[in-house]
Parts: sequence; C-alpha cells; structure tokens
Amino acid sequence: MTAIEDAPSGPARVSLTFLPAGKSVRVPSGVSVFDAALWNGVPVDSTCGGHGTCKKCKVRVIDASLPISALDERAFSAEQLGQGWRLACMATATRDLEVDVPELTTRPKAATVGVGRQVILRPAVQKRFLTLEDATLSDQRTDVERVLAAIDDLELRVDPHVLRTLGRTLRSANWQVTAVIVGTDLIAVEPGDTTGAAYGVAYDLGTTTAVATLMDLTTGAPIAVASMLNKQQPFGADVISRISSTMLDPESLPKLQELAQATLDELTQDVCAQAGVDPSSVYEVALAGNATMAQLILGIDPEPLGVAPFILATASYADLLAADLGVHVHPRARAMLFPHLGAYVGGDIIAGVLAAGMDRDKRLRLFIDIGTNCEIVLGNGEKLMSTAAPAGPAFEAASIRCGMRAAPGAIEVVAIGDAGMTLQVIDDAPPVGICGSGLVDAIAELARVGLLDSSGRFLSDERIAELRPDLADRFVERDGERLFVLATAAESGNGSDVVLSQRDVRELQFAKAAISTGWKLLLEEFGVEESEIQQVLLAGSFGTYLSARSAVGIGLVPSIPVMRIVSAGNVAGEGAKMALLSDSERHGARALLDEIHYVELSDRTDFNDRFVDELAFP
Amino acid sequence: MTAIEDAPSGPARVSLTFLPAGKSVRVPSGVSVFDAALWNGVPVDSTCGGHGTCKKCKVRVIDASLPISALDERAFSAEQLGQGWRLACMATATRDLEVDVPELTTRPKAATVGVGRQVILRPAVQKRFLTLEDATLSDQRTDVERVLAAIDDLELRVDPHVLRTLGRTLRSANWQVTAVIVGTDLIAVEPGDTTGAAYGVAYDLGTTTAVATLMDLTTGAPIAVASMLNKQQPFGADVISRISSTMLDPESLPKLQELAQATLDELTQDVCAQAGVDPSSVYEVALAGNATMAQLILGIDPEPLGVAPFILATASYADLLAADLGVHVHPRARAMLFPHLGAYVGGDIIAGVLAAGMDRDKRLRLFIDIGTNCEIVLGNGEKLMSTAAPAGPAFEAASIRCGMRAAPGAIEVVAIGDAGMTLQVIDDAPPVGICGSGLVDAIAELARVGLLDSSGRFLSDERIAELRPDLADRFVERDGERLFVLATAAESGNGSDVVLSQRDVRELQFAKAAISTGWKLLLEEFGVEESEIQQVLLAGSFGTYLSARSAVGIGLVPSIPVMRIVSAGNVAGEGAKMALLSDSERHGARALLDEIHYVELSDRTDFNDRFVDELAFP
Repeated sequence: MTAIEDAPSGPARVSLTFLPAGKSVRVPSGVSVFDAALWNGVPVDSTCGGHGTCKKCKVRVIDASLPISALDERAFSAEQLGQGWRLACMATATRDLEVDVPELTTRPKAATVGVGRQVILRPAVQKRFLTLEDATLSDQRTDVERVLAAIDDLELRVDPHVLRTLGRTLRSANWQVTAVIVGTDLIAVEPGDTTGAAYGVAYDLGTTTAVATLMDLTTGAPIAVASMLNKQQPFGADVISRISSTMLDPESLPKLQELAQATLDELTQDVCAQAGVDPSSVYEVALAGNATMAQLILGIDPEPLGVAPFILATASYADLLAADLGVHVHPRARAMLFPHLGAYVGGDIIAGVLAAGMDRDKRLRLFIDIGTNCEIVLGNGEKLMSTAAPAGPAFEAASIRCGMRAAPGAIEVVAIGDAGMTLQVIDDAPPVGICGSGLVDAIAELARVGLLDSSGRFLSDERIAELRPDLADRFVERDGERLFVLATAAESGNGSDVVLSQRDVRELQFAKAAISTGWKLLLEEFGVEESEIQQVLLAGSFGTYLSARSAVGIGLVPSIPVMRIVSAGNVAGEGAKMALLSDSERHGARALLDEIHYVELSDRTDFNDRFVDELAFP
Repeated sequence: MTAIEDAPSGPARVSLTFLPAGKSVRVPSGVSVFDAALWNGVPVDSTCGGHGTCKKCKVRVIDASLPISALDERAFSAEQLGQGWRLACMATATRDLEVDVPELTTRPKAATVGVGRQVILRPAVQKRFLTLEDATLSDQRTDVERVLAAIDDLELRVDPHVLRTLGRTLRSANWQVTAVIVGTDLIAVEPGDTTGAAYGVAYDLGTTTAVATLMDLTTGAPIAVASMLNKQQPFGADVISRISSTMLDPESLPKLQELAQATLDELTQDVCAQAGVDPSSVYEVALAGNATMAQLILGIDPEPLGVAPFILATASYADLLAADLGVHVHPRARAMLFPHLGAYVGGDIIAGVLAAGMDRDKRLRLFIDIGTNCEIVLGNGEKLMSTAAPAGPAFEAASIRCGMRAAPGAIEVVAIGDAGMTLQVIDDAPPVGICGSGLVDAIAELARVGLLDSSGRFLSDERIAELRPDLADRFVERDGERLFVLATAAESGNGSDVVLSQRDVRELQFAKAAISTGWKLLLEEFGVEESEIQQVLLAGSFGTYLSARSAVGIGLVPSIPVMRIVSAGNVAGEGAKMALLSDSERHGARALLDEIHYVELSDRTDFNDRFVDELAFP
C-alpha cells in the first residue's frame, strides 16, 4: 500500500468488495460502483450502460451512510434507502465499501479480446425495434416524443438529422421502426426491424501500417480484417518527418489529412465488402492511433507535437462523427478516438494498456512498444507510470546499411552456434536484406559468442581468428569500415553481400540505449528493481518478431526469464475492438489518463549520463 | 388556488419567498431556485448561468432540510450546510421555501425588451480574454486544458473545430486569446482581445414576413433591423399551401428550405452591413417561427403538420448551428429555435408569450395572434391554456374582393359618423383596395350604424334609404351581388370602385367566428367569464393596425373596455431578442411548454354548433 501513497501523482485508491462473490478490487477513488464492477468483471444489471437512466443497476451498499442521489430517491423506497440500496451508477466509491450485487436474471453476452480478456458485450451502439401507436387527435405527441417514450430507460439526445425524415419513416413503416442509438445519441430511425444488423469498425492507424477490423456488434465477433500501408508514406517514414512537412508547406496538412482518411476509408470499404455488410449498417468506429496520426486525420495542426515542449492540442476527443475521419459508413455514425497521455504516449498506447489489462493485473508488468518512438508503461493494478524514448529508426531498419522492412527476403532470425551461423529468411527466399528482428539477433549473437565487445566494437581480426576461425572470413573491411557478412553475394538474392556494418551496430546501440534508459529511469521512479518485473509485454508488430533471448541479450529489455517476455500482438487494435464492444471498457480507457503518471525524460539532467552508460551491451 | 388544483394538466406550483426583498412568487414545482429567482427578476450572482459550475449562486434556504447536492458539499462547509446554504442552481423547489439571497456586489446589466420588460443581460454567448502561460517541459498540459483551466468556473464542451487551429492561434497570439463560449460550448478561440465584439441575430420568421434584429450582446442593445417578405411566397400565402406543395412535388421541400434560408441570410448580411459588424462576430442566432417555418428551414418533412392529427416532428430543437439555418455568420455559431407547443401553436407564440410575460403576470390575460391560423393563449401567472383556430385568409385580405396587403393605397381605417363616411388610406394615397384592419372597421361600422344586421346581411335598399339616406347611393348591386362602395372609381387610385361585397362580409364572419369560438371555448375550459379578462393582447403586425373598437364591435375579441385591448407589437421578435440576451429567459421559454395546456378544438363535437352561433355579430 505504501507504494500508492508514495506515488508522486497516483490517485488515491479505495477497496471495493463485491458480495456474494467476495471479490475485492482496488479502484481509483471517485469512480462509480457501476464502473468498478464492470471493469473487474462483476456483472451488474443495466440497459443504459451506467448513464443513470435505466435504474436497473440496483446494489446494496453495506454501509448505508453512503450519500443518496436524487435518482436513488426515485428508484427506492425510504426503507430500501435505509437498507443501503443504491443505483450503482450513481454511487461513488470514495472510501472502502462492501457492495452486495443481486444475481443477474439473464447472463450478459461476452466476447474474448485483447490478451485473452473477456469483455462483457455492451456496445455503445444499441438498436431497439419499436412498435408505436399511431398518432391521433387525442394523442398528439410529437414524432420524437413518441419514439423516445418507447425507449424510456434511456435519456437520449436526438441527432437533428433524424428529424428530417422521421415523420415519413414512421408513417411509411406503419409505425414499426428500429431506433439506432450510440451512447446517449439517437442517430437514426430505420423502417422495420433492423436489429440484426449492427456493425462497428475498429482502426489501428499506425504511422506505417493501418488495420481495420469489422465487428459484428450483436455477437461481438470480428468478421473481416484488412490492412495496408498508411498512404501518408510519401511524406516520410516517421511522425517527425510528417510534422515537419506541415511546417514547411501549408498544403501538407490538408494533404496528410486526406491521405489518412483515404487509408481508413479504403480499409472500411474493403472489410464491408469482404463480409457483405452494407457500410450504412456501421454506426460507430473506434480509432487507436498515436497523437500525430490522430491530429493529422482530424486536420489539427500538429506543429506543437513536433517541437519542445511537445504539446497536444487535446488529450481526448468528444462529439466526433465517423465522417470527421473521412470514412463512408452511416452518415451519422459516431467516432471514438482513444485519448492521449502525452505527445508521445498516444491513443495507441492507451488502447494497448487497456487491452493488456495493465490497470487490473496484480503483477508488475512492463509494456514496451518499440518503434521510431518507443513508448514504455510500467505498473500493476495499483500504480502505472509511463514515458517515451526517442529510439530512432534503427528497428525499422531505415538507417541500417542493408536494412529493409519485414518483407520476403528479409533476414529475420540469426543464430550462431558451434557449427556456424544459420539464418531464417522471410518466405524462405534468398536473403536481400535484414529487418529489425534479424538485426537484433545478429548483434545479440555476435555479442554472446564474444565477437563484439561490450562497447559494441567488432574484435580485431586477430582475436576473431583465435576465437572463431570458422567465422573469420565473414569479417571484412570496405571503404574503411568493418563489416560482418551475413550472406555473400553468391548466397543472396540480389547479387550483393548482405552485411552488418560497425555503424549499424552503433545505430542499434543508440536505439537500445534510449529504450533501456527509459525503462530503467521508470523503474527508479516507481521504486522497484529490474528483477521484480514479472512480465514484459512487447507490443506492436515488431514485438511479434523480436526474439526475447536476443532482446535480453543486448539489454533492450530487463534481464528476466525469457518465458516472461511475451509478444502482446496488435494490442492497440484489440483496444479499439474492446471500445466498440463495451461502453464501460471505453470509460476505462478514459480513466487510464488519470491513472498513468507520465514521466518526461527530455528535461532530466541525468538523462544523457544514463544514456551513455546504457550504450554498452550487458 | 383551486384553479390550479383543478387544472387538467397544470403542473403543481410552489411558493418561493425571496428575502430580504420579501418578494413572493409561485413557480412550477421542480424548477431550480436559481431559475425561479431569475425569471422573477431577483438577481442572483452567477457567471455560469445556472449550470452548476461557477459555485457563485449561493443562497441560504431558511428550511435547512433541503437536500444537499454533491456540488453543495464542495461549495460549503458542514456548518454552512447546516445553516441552509445551498447553490441556487442545484436547489430544486419542490415545496414552499423562504430563500435569503445575498446582495450582489455588482449590479448586472439589464436591457428593456418585450412589452417593456427588463431582462438581466446574461447571454448564452460569453467572451473571455485569457492571458495564458507558455507551455514548458515542466507544464505539458494540452492546449485545450490550458484554455479550459483559465475558465474554471465553467464546464465546457469543446467544439472539435476549435482544435484544428488552436495550437497555431495560441502561439501566434503569444498566448493572449479570447475564448468564445455559447452556453456550455467553447466554439472558438480568437487571437488577442476581442471581448468588445459579441453579436447575435434575432429572427422572427413569419409565413409572410421575416424580420432580423442585430443585437449587441455586450450592451443588450438592438443595433440594426431589417425585414422582407419571406421568399417562400411563390409557394402560397399560407402554411397549408406550402405544406401541400411538398406533398405534391418532392423537389419542393429542398426548394422551400433554400428560400427560407436565403431570406434569413439576406437579412443577416443586411443588418451586419447596416451596423458595420463583421458577420463572423455573430456567435448565436435565435429564431421564433411557427412550426411549419421551423420545419421547412431545417428541411424537416412538414407533411404530418398539414394533415390530421397534425403532428410535430419535435417540440424542441437542440444542438443546432446557425449554419443549419443557412446563415453565414461565425461558422460554428449556434442557433436557438423556440420550441413548439403544437403543430399550430408554434415557436412564434411561445416567444410571444415569453415576451408578454404571460406566465408571470397576475392579471387574467388573453393573447391573440390573428392570421390565417389564429393562436390564442389565455391565462395568468398561475395557469395558461392555449388553442389554435383556423381563421382562413380573410384578415390577410386574400379572399376579399378588393382586398390587399397593408401597403400604400390600402384603406386601413373606416369610420362612419353622422356626417358620412371617412377613410384613412396608407400613405394618404388615393385608395386602391382595403386591408384587414380596414375590412374589420368597415364591417364593424356598418353593423354599428345598423346597415348590416346581426346575421351579417346588408339591409334592404329601402331600409338603408330610411336609415342613412346619405349613404344609400353607396349600396349597389352588380352581377347579382350587393356591394358597398368605399371609394368610387373617380375617388380611387386605379379607376375602379373599391367595394365591400356581401361575400366579403361572409368571409370575415367565418374568420371572426372561428376565433371567437376558440377563445370562448378556452374561457370555458379555464372556468372564467369573458368579463373577467383584464387585458387582451393583440400580437403580430395585424394586431398593430386593428382598431380595438371595431374588434369588440364585431365580437372578434371579448367585450371589455377598449383601453384594455392593446397591441403587443412584434412579440415573437421580442422573444427572440430576449433569448439572445438571457440564457435564463430561454429556459423560461422551454418551461412554458410544460406550463401551457393545449386544447385541441378540431376533435370537439360541439365545435361546429358553437361556430355557427358565433357567426352572428353581437
């Protein structure tokens, strides 16, 4: 518990015990009992999703002195209030509480997402089939009132566009219609019963790659996936080059916005076509993306993100339409964007932390998303801290002499055994270059067998010939630079040697040092030792390919047993799916902004010293 | 008091006594103490306008058992709560209360509008000049957070469009900016100090005429006015013909929408040009219009308004932009539309009732807006009832043989004295026709001097020659119809006689009967006698010209002393101005929807009998 109270900005937490299960959880003080239950998988009855309108989330708080809300007064008798009955969504946990939760009469549907997490299916998108009574001279309620009265468990805001055709729709459909609701917004009224068709699209908009997943919101199942390179590529490989282009040319921002929008729209039309779903049945989209991607797709000037002190326009977004992202789905479909913690710990990381359940796992875990910018989150269910480290382009192999993307012909695995070196090449093609995971492997292996010293220098030819005569002829010098030949021109697929240069090793050292400085400083701030880390989660596509042994070998990740270093996969995309499936998970994402303490490295006076220390291999 | 308890649907009312003034008011149960004070001219401190965010509206409730809200707990100490201190905006009046209101340190500005009413100047539009601190590495708040933190008495929703240029604006303006707020929305952030420029436009969009008034929201003063004919005229003179056209031709609705929008936009550019105001400094517009006008300008299918059972798409509108009305002001300016009570008691009437203060006047008053459709509201500060009567086009003189609009050459006043008949013609031009007020005068005078019997028939030539030989030659017969010559061809301005035909008299009788049936049934429903009416308010431009004596003479209005029959002028437009100047007056307009009980006449079995009785002149 001391860890919490010592936290520099960690919010106070309180304990909630849910009866009869006896499940105890710790949540930030001030969250509603309803959210606390849902985040921890304790099912509470509700149709409004915790908005205080359906009055179904009745629980009994053992300490009956909990404040009584105006809604409680309407939902309960004085006797019940005295017994501690409250609406869970109105009851705020500001101290330790025991809460008795009545058993659900119907089990909610659940879907498995993220790193094997179960999510209770309660999307923001809801459809209700309504059979209304005809208007008469003795019942002259307005068309809107008639529809809203039939959905009396929700307090809805009516999208003004619904009004345009509502009168005609009601009358032509003989008063049998389906209301389409997203959150607390009534976004459409469709003729007849269309409750079977409710879809959402989850986007992971990366600087390099974008992925879209079409979700069936009635079942929680993903039904089509598509991915493609972000069409903004011509403006540079990383976010800094894209931001710079907007600073140099006022035409760049609208162009970058258009390209990002075109990327998502193409993916959207693709997944809908694959699944045979009419795009107008997509009522919500959720997007996980870094801050630059989010600002660019919304046309928000990204310049303050790119220059110190690195300022976001906003942490969270409200009231957005899918149309604001340029995707052609239902014209009034809503858009949810994951919030950002900082200019360099963006919505993709928040989505990933959500999907990984870092805020509810008792284990101390380290989440690392390796890329040009590396985001690091450390913590457990009690406390979370994060930082960003500027790793540079080494892992994307852009600045590496024979570097290439993880595409056919890329060396992705390098192993040096007693019998010599073995390579694994994507698609088993003849090698033409080396991708990030191969680079890490090659350097880790050379260091492990002692051909690279801890300062990152190739040994002298004499020492190599002594130690590993079998590999000696692979070390050559060209144009004054020493090279290690991974594949000779004869072995390669393009008639040239595939080599690792001394400079390549330096590039990797810089990237590795930035990252390990980041998580080491974070460990210090957190007040724990490297050995206490119980799991390292490698996020993003690079994390999928990276060899845990090599990552430990070069000191990129903490030195813990390799089986505790796991690839988390595309957790950002999983977070986006969870947001579509569960309104309360989405609230959980917003809560993460308050829970994660951001540590800025760039203004630390000791950063450079530490960085230099970290250049060495373990 | 019995009147209230007997009211078929009148809401319960409670008494509030404001100390130290000792002012007692009765308000619908459930309104906030804040609103109750403001509606009754009791000034309460506030900067957020009753939204529960500024915590300035502190009052002491003498009965300290009033529920304590969560906000109260933050605003007051336990001791203060025990003494009865509450935030007025959070305290709901559900029983009789005495409330002690601290004196204001600064007097709020007030403006005079409506029928001489003082309105406390507290527009939904607010501007705040902010001097912000630069972002630094140790203060990396987002741009939005930085702005919102400087406006910490309000809880604002940020318009997503603000984000696009916020970063650049803050930095180019050296962090000195003006936040533009409408209600709880931050709609713009402008460089420098622009607090001096805040404007709104109030529209009265009538079926015939539209009026726009440019309001300076910093002073409350109207600074330019313009009016023009509604450009929808080619689609018919009344709402029914415009609705019919949309039913006959699917192209009509978009065309009618475009014409209404063009009407308001032209007026808007006109008033801005007159006053030398940049339209982009107009941040809000308010529109009072009947239900058909409101639905047409928003592109909402009006068909259900035009056919029984006469159904509105919606009573009230939320989340509208000025752009939704097609007016080119600030691109994110908001639009407020007055709500409708029914298909034929629209936002223009609600605006008029608000401006006339009918809900707070102790006197029993009858509000009549005469037009093709006549709206009638009866009541006092305790109870309000309303109905609509289909008067037809007689008062607009459209179906009258020599009828014309109130334009130069129109006979507007007719008087028959012992010495003969005198006419008053608009602009003192030679007469070319007769407008509504002249028509009522002519018929009232003929009836008064006995040349028209109570059934509405001209007397026989013999009787006329007996009674008024001086006027006998003015009664002629042409094509089998009897006519009364108001001006001979020689006297007229177009070489033709200007006449009143027997059929014209019948037309007026039908219109008059519809209206008097309406208010008589309303008096019955209300449970009062005609003689108890203390004031008749004639609304709309027709009401300005109508002679009270003639209106009583033909039984169009109750038979009460003519000095109690007053023209209320363009009260709909005044209501729209009030809505711009005062956020709480606008809430008052919304409250009227619950307070006014609507009586539908068209399904009453006794309507036709009563109507026939009313055809006769008194």
